[in-house]
Amino acid sequence: MKPPLITLLTDFGTRDPFVGMMKGVLLGICPGARLVDLSHETPPQAVTTAAFLLRSSIDYFPKGTVHLAVVDPGVGSARKAIALKSRGRFFVGPDNGLFSAALQKWGIEQVVELTEKKYQLPGPSPTFHGRDIFAPAAGYLAKGVPLARLGAPTNNWIWREIPRPFKSPQGWNGEVLWVDRFGNLVTNLEEKHLLSPKLRKAGSPNFLRLRIGKTVILSLITHYAQAKKGTVAALLGSSGNLEICVNGGNAAQKLRAGVGNPVFLT
Amino acid sequence: MKPPLITLLTDFGTRDPFVGMMKGVLLGICPGARLVDLSHETPPQAVTTAAFLLRSSIDYFPKGTVHLAVVDPGVGSARKAIALKSRGRFFVGPDNGLFSAALQKWGIEQVVELTEKKYQLPGPSPTFHGRDIFAPAAGYLAKGVPLARLGAPTNNWIWREIPRPFKSPQGWNGEVLWVDRFGNLVTNLEEKHLLSPKLRKAGSPNFLRLRIGKTVILSLITHYAQAKKGTVAALLGSSGNLEICVNGGNAAQKLRAGVGNPVFLT
Amino acid sequence: MKPPLITLLTDFGTRDPFVGMMKGVLLGICPGARLVDLSHETPPQAVTTAAFLLRSSIDYFPKGTVHLAVVDPGVGSARKAIALKSRGRFFVGPDNGLFSAALQKWGIEQVVELTEKKYQLPGPSPTFHGRDIFAPAAGYLAKGVPLARLGAPTNNWIWREIPRPFKSPQGWNGEVLWVDRFGNLVTNLEEKHLLSPKLRKAGSPNFLRLRIGKTVILSLITHYAQAKKGTVAALLGSSGNLEICVNGGNAAQKLRAGVGNPVFLT
Repeated sequence: MKPPLITLLTDFGTRDPFVGMMKGVLLGICPGARLVDLSHETPPQAVTTAAFLLRSSIDYFPKGTVHLAVVDPGVGSARKAIALKSRGRFFVGPDNGLFSAALQKWGIEQVVELTEKKYQLPGPSPTFHGRDIFAPAAGYLAKGVPLARLGAPTNNWIWREIPRPFKSPQGWNGEVLWVDRFGNLVTNLEEKHLLSPKLRKAGSPNFLRLRIGKTVILSLITHYAQAKKGTVAALLGSSGNLEICVNGGNAAQKLRAGVGNPVFLT
Repeated sequence: MKPPLITLLTDFGTRDPFVGMMKGVLLGICPGARLVDLSHETPPQAVTTAAFLLRSSIDYFPKGTVHLAVVDPGVGSARKAIALKSRGRFFVGPDNGLFSAALQKWGIEQVVELTEKKYQLPGPSPTFHGRDIFAPAAGYLAKGVPLARLGAPTNNWIWREIPRPFKSPQGWNGEVLWVDRFGNLVTNLEEKHLLSPKLRKAGSPNFLRLRIGKTVILSLITHYAQAKKGTVAALLGSSGNLEICVNGGNAAQKLRAGVGNPVFLT
Repeated sequence: MKPPLITLLTDFGTRDPFVGMMKGVLLGICPGARLVDLSHETPPQAVTTAAFLLRSSIDYFPKGTVHLAVVDPGVGSARKAIALKSRGRFFVGPDNGLFSAALQKWGIEQVVELTEKKYQLPGPSPTFHGRDIFAPAAGYLAKGVPLARLGAPTNNWIWREIPRPFKSPQGWNGEVLWVDRFGNLVTNLEEKHLLSPKLRKAGSPNFLRLRIGKTVILSLITHYAQAKKGTVAALLGSSGNLEICVNGGNAAQKLRAGVGNPVFLT
């Protein structure tokens, strides 16, 4: 039998032992589980960013995976704790829209509110549901406890969209969703927002007209090394999103751009 | 049978492959062990801070866990290498007080000095006992080698207290022990230092009078989102310690405070 | 049977879920594999630095280990994807010299170019071979697929040396290869570049004459705590390389030195 797989996505960082404690709880409940960190460095409390990163990652994990995600500015308040099922995978975390982007892609099969105290640590801390409520739920799901046992079914949960590009007479108005480690600006524009398939020849000099600030990018490349060193270029990145990059450099620094920065595709 | 669990706590950071090498040694000796990182980002050589983080974490790991901790400014000098047993868990690392805080909570059953060369890498480097002495010891303990086989029993080890609050006529004088990723100031004040149980109603406006620098905090909240955005508040955090926080902000930055900063509870 | 072990070394950082996605692919293919991170924080696209860190690490992993390394400025370009075998271990990554330093130490048994589509994700992204080509190859090797099945044997691959010290009439001219987390400057000078064995007594005050910038170091210590607090000293570090350190301080900051900085041993 395959060992169960649990991924972790949080904004807890790795300086604090918060993630380690969650893993202790997970392995205490399901000692055979395999744990994979997606990221613990999403900007503190940035639910939409985390939702985007989660959506980008889920295709690469097998059926049965439990995705535990805790970016939770409302911890301890009235916000619900939930677990969902979709395509044979499970999602566990706060009810604040963190899973909307993933589920928009995949659909939802079943949602429960994590109300069953038996599957929580006793006396959960009002400031650390990741350890005391979400990790136990994920551990029991990985162990094979059916979703329905963790709490009451609910049809009432928060849906939070990742900003989508909108159309204007001049073209598509998008924005930067994420700046990766290399300074590449990952936008919410995708292949479908590009011009007609006929024009979709990579490298064709008039292929696109992408504007960010005062910079206009006119050609689409297929990989970073294709651009001249130091020049700003655009490509369809590994998540399927249009990215702005600088070969051998840092686009975010060069263009002084970051998350939320508008981009125009004309 | 449950796979053995080993946690790692160091100040080695994750840029260098130091921790990876230790894990290679651990899995070479005990291939079935599960490894959990507590933190590798404690401030370099800050033994007391690491001791506090370890104490905060141990309750969340099952019996049989081996806690390997290496914050070791005296590596290669005359300081001893030790392993301890407490409540069915093992602790392995330098004899510099790193385990005192954990053991103050749990008591000590057995201590040995890691003198048995057979359970070390041959020719241990004088600058990396983590890899050459402590990782092998932890690996063999996880594999089931009895503690007593790793070296000679000893009753002579270093005890180092985490600073405790002290009482003055005005109340308790505490200090900041740790600044977490969110900028929350974790103090050494605990619930027992607060006023009488009668006054311990969360949110009661006169519940406490906590001073840090020129800032006075008058109410205790139960979770971060309960405070007004941007205001300084106090709560009992997930480790049981009184924390100073700013909802949606960073208390350490706002108050320009850090580890060692005094706090007064009157 | 021992679970297979895969190490990961990249410049992807841990903010992005890139490494997590690779681990999803690895565990999807080889669910029993044990994964160990060597480092994901090598400077972006610094192939030589990564090669040095890999060489420093491989001795600590057992036979059968698969070393997956992706520092890949040429991703998507004509550079080949390769896998190699040496001393019963496997190496998987881009053909850009990343493995030369390790193999210079160990020799090479077998090299293949990763041409077999069956052992790749379908439609590999031109910007993320780590996830789509290298992780699958490493996963299948860990699962026991023979190296020769992954592609065509090749005798044509890129060799890239780590800078070696060179001799001048005054002595050895070396350089800094790496600055570790503590600010220690790890040089390419090794024990063999030091003076005659007779003079190799640690702590002997005239043991060496090491110059970096305007600073001259005259004694070799054996461990950090042996130096006076705050003074610059030199020792043979845990990787066998001569290191410049400051006990209780940061040599890189104190000497304003970094990777590439020349050092002279006279």
